[in-house]
Amino acid sequence: MTIPFSRRRFLASTSATVAASAVLNLPRRAEALARFVSGSTATTPDPDWKHKAITDFSRSPHAKLRQVPVSAVNVTGFWAKRRKTNVESSIPSMHDELLAHGRMDNFLRLQGKSSDPQSGPVYSDSDIYKWTESVGFVLQSSDNPELRKTADSMIRNVVAVQEPGGYLNTYYVGARKPERMLQHTQQVGHELYNIGHYLQAAIAYYRATGDPTMLNAGIRFIDDFLLPNYGPGPEQTPIISGHPEIEMALIELYRTTGNRRYLDLAGYILHGDTRWKIEPRAIKYMFCGIPFTSRTKLEGHAVRAMYACCGATDYFLETGDPAYWKTLDALWHDLSEHQMYVTGGVGAREQGEAFGDAYELPNARAYGESCAAIGNMMWNSRMLAASGEARFTDVMERALYNGINSGMSLDGKLYCYRNPLAFDPTSGDVIRNPWYDTTCCPPNLERTLASLPGYFYSTSKDGIYVHLYDASELNWHLEDGTGLNIVQKTNYPWTGDVQIAVSPAQPAEFTVYLRIPGWSTKNSVRVNGKAIDGAQPGEYLAIRRRWASGDHVEIAMDMTPQVLEANPAVMEDVGKLVLQRGPVVFCMEELDQKVRSRQINMGDYAAHKTGETKAHFDPDLLDGVVVLEHPGSITPAAEQVGLYHAATTSPDTHDATTLTLIPYYAWANRTPSSMQVWIPYKRA
Amino acid sequence: MTIPFSRRRFLASTSATVAASAVLNLPRRAEALARFVSGSTATTPDPDWKHKAITDFSRSPHAKLRQVPVSAVNVTGFWAKRRKTNVESSIPSMHDELLAHGRMDNFLRLQGKSSDPQSGPVYSDSDIYKWTESVGFVLQSSDNPELRKTADSMIRNVVAVQEPGGYLNTYYVGARKPERMLQHTQQVGHELYNIGHYLQAAIAYYRATGDPTMLNAGIRFIDDFLLPNYGPGPEQTPIISGHPEIEMALIELYRTTGNRRYLDLAGYILHGDTRWKIEPRAIKYMFCGIPFTSRTKLEGHAVRAMYACCGATDYFLETGDPAYWKTLDALWHDLSEHQMYVTGGVGAREQGEAFGDAYELPNARAYGESCAAIGNMMWNSRMLAASGEARFTDVMERALYNGINSGMSLDGKLYCYRNPLAFDPTSGDVIRNPWYDTTCCPPNLERTLASLPGYFYSTSKDGIYVHLYDASELNWHLEDGTGLNIVQKTNYPWTGDVQIAVSPAQPAEFTVYLRIPGWSTKNSVRVNGKAIDGAQPGEYLAIRRRWASGDHVEIAMDMTPQVLEANPAVMEDVGKLVLQRGPVVFCMEELDQKVRSRQINMGDYAAHKTGETKAHFDPDLLDGVVVLEHPGSITPAAEQVGLYHAATTSPDTHDATTLTLIPYYAWANRTPSSMQVWIPYKRA
Repeated sequence: MTIPFSRRRFLASTSATVAASAVLNLPRRAEALARFVSGSTATTPDPDWKHKAITDFSRSPHAKLRQVPVSAVNVTGFWAKRRKTNVESSIPSMHDELLAHGRMDNFLRLQGKSSDPQSGPVYSDSDIYKWTESVGFVLQSSDNPELRKTADSMIRNVVAVQEPGGYLNTYYVGARKPERMLQHTQQVGHELYNIGHYLQAAIAYYRATGDPTMLNAGIRFIDDFLLPNYGPGPEQTPIISGHPEIEMALIELYRTTGNRRYLDLAGYILHGDTRWKIEPRAIKYMFCGIPFTSRTKLEGHAVRAMYACCGATDYFLETGDPAYWKTLDALWHDLSEHQMYVTGGVGAREQGEAFGDAYELPNARAYGESCAAIGNMMWNSRMLAASGEARFTDVMERALYNGINSGMSLDGKLYCYRNPLAFDPTSGDVIRNPWYDTTCCPPNLERTLASLPGYFYSTSKDGIYVHLYDASELNWHLEDGTGLNIVQKTNYPWTGDVQIAVSPAQPAEFTVYLRIPGWSTKNSVRVNGKAIDGAQPGEYLAIRRRWASGDHVEIAMDMTPQVLEANPAVMEDVGKLVLQRGPVVFCMEELDQKVRSRQINMGDYAAHKTGETKAHFDPDLLDGVVVLEHPGSITPAAEQVGLYHAATTSPDTHDATTLTLIPYYAWANRTPSSMQVWIPYKRA
Repeated sequence: MTIPFSRRRFLASTSATVAASAVLNLPRRAEALARFVSGSTATTPDPDWKHKAITDFSRSPHAKLRQVPVSAVNVTGFWAKRRKTNVESSIPSMHDELLAHGRMDNFLRLQGKSSDPQSGPVYSDSDIYKWTESVGFVLQSSDNPELRKTADSMIRNVVAVQEPGGYLNTYYVGARKPERMLQHTQQVGHELYNIGHYLQAAIAYYRATGDPTMLNAGIRFIDDFLLPNYGPGPEQTPIISGHPEIEMALIELYRTTGNRRYLDLAGYILHGDTRWKIEPRAIKYMFCGIPFTSRTKLEGHAVRAMYACCGATDYFLETGDPAYWKTLDALWHDLSEHQMYVTGGVGAREQGEAFGDAYELPNARAYGESCAAIGNMMWNSRMLAASGEARFTDVMERALYNGINSGMSLDGKLYCYRNPLAFDPTSGDVIRNPWYDTTCCPPNLERTLASLPGYFYSTSKDGIYVHLYDASELNWHLEDGTGLNIVQKTNYPWTGDVQIAVSPAQPAEFTVYLRIPGWSTKNSVRVNGKAIDGAQPGEYLAIRRRWASGDHVEIAMDMTPQVLEANPAVMEDVGKLVLQRGPVVFCMEELDQKVRSRQINMGDYAAHKTGETKAHFDPDLLDGVVVLEHPGSITPAAEQVGLYHAATTSPDTHDATTLTLIPYYAWANRTPSSMQVWIPYKRA
């Protein structure tokens, strides 16, 4: 709980303004930087590469909060196991899958090192980039020479195929070269989507290693190819962001280099260009092509919409344009009031991987793409930075523990593309797979887990925000430079007690903003043993005082399982309930039930008011999970009744049973069996 | 109730074996027939063209029942109004739409009479053919010189573009000619689908007019182009039925001409050809490419599957192959137990317009294409012919009164492609439209209404089957040639009393098979006032006796509205009920409610057991419908509660209201408003 002396010194010496020289210590890096600054636009990446967050709001004028770097938080609790699996199992096995499916051959072929034909869809380059970004975040947390070596080699092979004019893409080459950046290609060809992911990877890698090799090549794409030829100018070709992604990447590049042209270009893209006529269907599907600020609801392809919202929030954070905030807030209300699954997943329709109508939230047919849940979390983290409001953190936590966490198997080698809320193996669907030809989700899950510590805390002008609870240690500093160590001790999410030791390098008055989760309706907060009033679910509890090493905060959240129902307008969830405990949403897998049947329900609705659910931790099940037991009853098997029958003839009595529920994220890690999140209750 | 003398004579003179000379009375027809019989295969269409049913089972060895001709039944009741609208409004306005959208220009262009470019999707020719088939059925019921003239002219322009080799298609011409009948084209190009609809139109038109112009050209396509070049032979190219339709058309052509090669070709197509490798996804989607008899469930594109089942049942009716019946029966159980909407609609998923998993029956997102419901009825009419079992008639009636009848607006000028079971206008969807670029459904609805009288009765070796109830008059004969007149007096489906006068030309012993609908659990049957026992819902009541002119049967079916619930495995319908009265399924449109709100439900579940629904006929509403009133209650508006909230905090008391329900088929004929078929009930 106290900071070792050496670390305190390290903290003191590495505040944002003093670490520039570190970059120049390495000859290779100095050389690269020299090459970099000699470029035509002379942009200079922020040399304090080591201390940048996932999204660097440190100079964003309209950010109320600033994330801490991934490296500042050492996670040792619930997420540590998932992150270890990510580094040791997922990232290496996905590397092998990417190579086995020819995704690196696409780069090698263009160097004459492979004779394999082009492989994979138009967006295949992005999968290599997202994997590289994952490694970048891994390296921000800890050294990993093997991954570093592999990624370095891949980066060399990527930048080697950049054309002299800056263009970089392995699909629109050879006979397809004339199709580059045509309107149709911009709408469906993912050239800028690929470069967006390239830039995010390059920035994460630069912030991990200081090596600007990848970053410099990315800047050349923008400076030499994109900016001169594409944009609003009368001599320029319009830009359509067929799959939004470039917007947030350009703004992060602006944050990294200080070159405002990148921000302006993102603004131009978000505004849309009327010179090209785009079909209304495409404008809806792509979530681009008209001014972002004219949007009134989420629609079209869910990942596109989420990424567009990320870019638009980034744009707001830099410009403060109130029209953007107004739109973003309206879209967020649409999301959280009409279009989000209880798991934090988004995207109701398989057709177009799309948002549905308001309250259209099918369970078995839920699309809920892993990438969309990740996009949801990324967007909400930006909304949180802009506002400091805990409603956004609630969505982040819901998505993280459920709709994102479900996306990777416990062994880290299988991934969900869809994340349905009900499943029947007789459908023939296989939800967890090691590979998808469109393999966007696996490396997206990997970069999310690798970057996760960066979401735990933010600083503000007046203190520190605690967003996520898990056993962990923060070593960072307040915005005035005061070193700060925070240690969380907890078994969260399995228990609701969190002990937080707050240790500034020297005693100082500041505010600790403690997140009270929206689900936490019963809780208590103590500082050094003394109760603190004012905690409200879904808000940050501001604890302002003079903090000194040895101070500790305790938050105790009641973890009694909660029975939730949906808005009556969600027609799919009528007559059904869901169990949630803390941030974890539960589901029922058939193989855990006392009765081998899908035909069980949650018993009387009235029974739920008495809180009959029992919870226990089972260390041997599914890598250790809390299991819920709930009274239920057995309904007639489907085969015993007709598809439609007179309501009066159906039986009114059901045998009692006990339902066993596991966390949703852990479903489908054993023998395939039917699964339900929303469970019918017995009618009266 | 007695047959006028002149009509009796007409009936006596036109039994199946004596009317051949009628064909030869018209010089033009004789000339055409001479041309026809001089063809290479010398097939002869059955010259008794005037007395053939929709599907001519008169010589099908494995048909237990044989349909009566469309011309034999004069409908004067419920369906008369719809059929009048069909002839006076739908068919003429669809003709204009087809011309306005260039569908005839496709034919004119190839004759140098139009310079417009090719218009519409690959299957656009079929829309002209289905429209022509509608006219054929109209002309089977009554003269209509104007329609006849228009159709004759269109037929001339169609056959004019047939190539010397027999090929006929307006899409695969010019630069697309080399693509004809390639594997990919067969899978997606609809060449044989178009010709299937062509043949059905040609046969309906021939059976209406005796004019074999269109029929002869169709036979040339098969004889000169298809049979010599495509099929199982080592020198032949395989056939893939990318959109099944050709199978039933070929078998009806066999029935029309007696040329067994058409039946054998249909059998070959239904069996599939292993020489071409087809993706499993396509085999599922197209419902072809593997032996039909290897199918175990309905899947893929719903219309394709239904049409394939029609063809396979036709094949069974001609061959009696028990493997076909076994498969058809299994598929029918899959349909009626797992995959059919309460409206008789089929096809749960918009993606691929496809069947879903078992019990996957979303309401607002239901696809339920009009064509699929029609295919369902067409298939069940064939299953009925093969078996004489009323379970198939129950499905026909359910589809006809609901999922098909909903497909055309009351004014006959707007059509549904999708037939959802719930709707919210805020979705922006417009369900009824005058035109679709894929305009398969409108002429399909038109041919169904035009042919409807042909579904009312069948003959069997021992008597007559009464399938559908509606005010109408049959003039036909028993299979032994005895003239038979049957008059139904009823206000069905609004009332459950049907008076049936059975008048054979001379007294004769035979059986009247009276259908007892599956929904009719309370009823009574009398013959000449004397009660008859043994009526079972979902069966035919066989009344064998010596019938004489003046005999009358009365069936009285209790029309108390029935409250139905779905199998508990239909997760979408959990906690919801539906009201059905007679064969008519009801729905609730928001604009009829006392409270302008979607947030109303059906009150206590228990209340439904007491039968509280009130019914009255409103002659001024929606062309005259029965309206139901049912106790309900008002739930909190969607805006008043969160998307997810604790079950215990929601209110338990609701204000009472009265729900007003209208027949589902009549929905969306007024101001757009939200609609629900399945209505939640209040939880206890």
